[in-house]
Amino acid sequence: MKIGSQTIQLENTPKLYNTSSMVGPKEMQGPLNSYFELHTDDIFFGEDSFEKAESKIMKTCIQNLITKTGESNDTIDYIFAGDLLNQCIASGYCIRDLSIPFFGLYGACSTFSESLMLASLFVNANYAKKAIAATSSHFCSAERQFRMPLEHGNQMSPTAQCTVTGSGAAFIVPKDAVEPSPYITFVTPGKIVDRGIKDMTNMGAAMAPAAFSTIITHLQDTGRRPEYYDAIITGDLGILGSEILVDLFKQEGMDLSNIHQDCGALIYDHDAQDTHCGGSGCGCMASVFSSYFYQKLKSKEYNKVLVVSTGALMSPTSSLQGESIPGIAHAVAIENEVS
Amino acid sequence: MKIGSQTIQLENTPKLYNTSSMVGPKEMQGPLNSYFELHTDDIFFGEDSFEKAESKIMKTCIQNLITKTGESNDTIDYIFAGDLLNQCIASGYCIRDLSIPFFGLYGACSTFSESLMLASLFVNANYAKKAIAATSSHFCSAERQFRMPLEHGNQMSPTAQCTVTGSGAAFIVPKDAVEPSPYITFVTPGKIVDRGIKDMTNMGAAMAPAAFSTIITHLQDTGRRPEYYDAIITGDLGILGSEILVDLFKQEGMDLSNIHQDCGALIYDHDAQDTHCGGSGCGCMASVFSSYFYQKLKSKEYNKVLVVSTGALMSPTSSLQGESIPGIAHAVAIENEVS
Repeated sequence: MKIGSQTIQLENTPKLYNTSSMVGPKEMQGPLNSYFELHTDDIFFGEDSFEKAESKIMKTCIQNLITKTGESNDTIDYIFAGDLLNQCIASGYCIRDLSIPFFGLYGACSTFSESLMLASLFVNANYAKKAIAATSSHFCSAERQFRMPLEHGNQMSPTAQCTVTGSGAAFIVPKDAVEPSPYITFVTPGKIVDRGIKDMTNMGAAMAPAAFSTIITHLQDTGRRPEYYDAIITGDLGILGSEILVDLFKQEGMDLSNIHQDCGALIYDHDAQDTHCGGSGCGCMASVFSSYFYQKLKSKEYNKVLVVSTGALMSPTSSLQGESIPGIAHAVAIENEVS
Repeated sequence: MKIGSQTIQLENTPKLYNTSSMVGPKEMQGPLNSYFELHTDDIFFGEDSFEKAESKIMKTCIQNLITKTGESNDTIDYIFAGDLLNQCIASGYCIRDLSIPFFGLYGACSTFSESLMLASLFVNANYAKKAIAATSSHFCSAERQFRMPLEHGNQMSPTAQCTVTGSGAAFIVPKDAVEPSPYITFVTPGKIVDRGIKDMTNMGAAMAPAAFSTIITHLQDTGRRPEYYDAIITGDLGILGSEILVDLFKQEGMDLSNIHQDCGALIYDHDAQDTHCGGSGCGCMASVFSSYFYQKLKSKEYNKVLVVSTGALMSPTSSLQGESIPGIAHAVAIENEVS
């Protein structure tokens, strides 16, 4: 049921039963390496192109989820997935091989919570008993598509972020289906917000106002304060974008500094790994939420989190044509207890 | 509620209350010109790039729908939209300006029925009272992105189709909301089907097996025969792809030849307009269904139709890397009477 201006309450509180994560070599050198379930040391993952490697990483991640939940491809009702590549080929070729009815999504780096929202809403409405949400990204396929071929060896701007090589997948089932697991309670699909940022190497600044818009709307719609949550987790605002988000809340008289965490700021060691403002890409929140944060929910270190992937909806073409960068963010409330 | 292997029954039968369509100059020279609601004779539509023109066509089409239904941007709950451009910038920039909570989709030319499915499912589950589904494409932005710059003047292969310049949008509301309108009764989200076609100039052959898979599954899940429908309408299989679809059904002992119609085969005059196998693109079924077929439903010339957009999920990169073309199709049953 819709409540407030943008939020949907999931009255049947579907469960986030399990997750799967996979990352590449650089992510395994970072501080979260003990949390990731699968990894590869080979950036090509045995394939002959970066695009095929990304698709295979996503497929491996999803197949791991299906296997460890005791399912098979035939028992999954629907899969919701997307990635950053032109025409979303990482997802398309991955899901061709899985043969599961497929909703293709594009929300740039916001796609992880977009897919999580839709999978949860389908289970809540009894459209599906078993739904999967998944996204991926790959540093090398993203670099050559959005920026420069790797061979060019270009320098990163101080405000730039590194696209994460990785994938994450989440398995959604009805409330009474399985062992205790966190519930999906509310989702807040976002509006596009564009404050005129044109610098493609400063995505955090372009996306922070969208994250602010969606989070503040979620709080208004649900009557909650930021402190209700143990963590408000953004996808990949990075270090600068996170500062902007905290500043925007400060202007509203709310202190988010101890509650807010950002997957892009967490995934790398900034001093040792030369990753400037942190990680980004559809695979960033997907891999970090599906490992680090999901484990904290399962262990009950965290009991209430708001998951907010953020996306920048430009393309190299739109930027070359002088357009600014539209941002979007979608929020998913995940809680261990429901009344 | 899910029924059968892939189909969802919409028990609350939301209504397709209204539609809007807009096309470019070539489409206005075709046989359906009297059905389209809006058009432009200027392929740039007053903008300085084809991409901006496409985005403006989509925005004009959606705003027309919002205005004529007596709504404003603020009263629309959610919009589901997508297009063919890299990172879906036609939709992104269009919906930035509309400021409506947004689900970005990518299903290539299958996106129109994907958006129609999701908008209908949201209204059916009371997640939304007013939802819009919309897609667009543009001949010139697609040519230079998928094939060659127009200045190259390359010849079309005999099996090729012309990307339609156009957009279509549909407005979904609850059953009891408005005057009599067609109902959305069932949706069948598709699986990806890939029969190994690698010829990027023969999309009809790549997509026909996916259309077959989704339609036959829909019929099995609902217990219906093809004759149940006044028309089974595919998105843009074109002339050759349509023949393949009819052949595939013949092998199952079903004669689809008098029931099947294809938006890509209908939109142009093949002899006079040199369009080879017909029209294609997200804007093809969007504009043809939202005008020609919707008017036939409203006039009750047709009372039961199955709307099946078909998409080819490759990219120029995947084709250059030797991959075949995965197809997908999604079906939406629309009926004037519900029991």
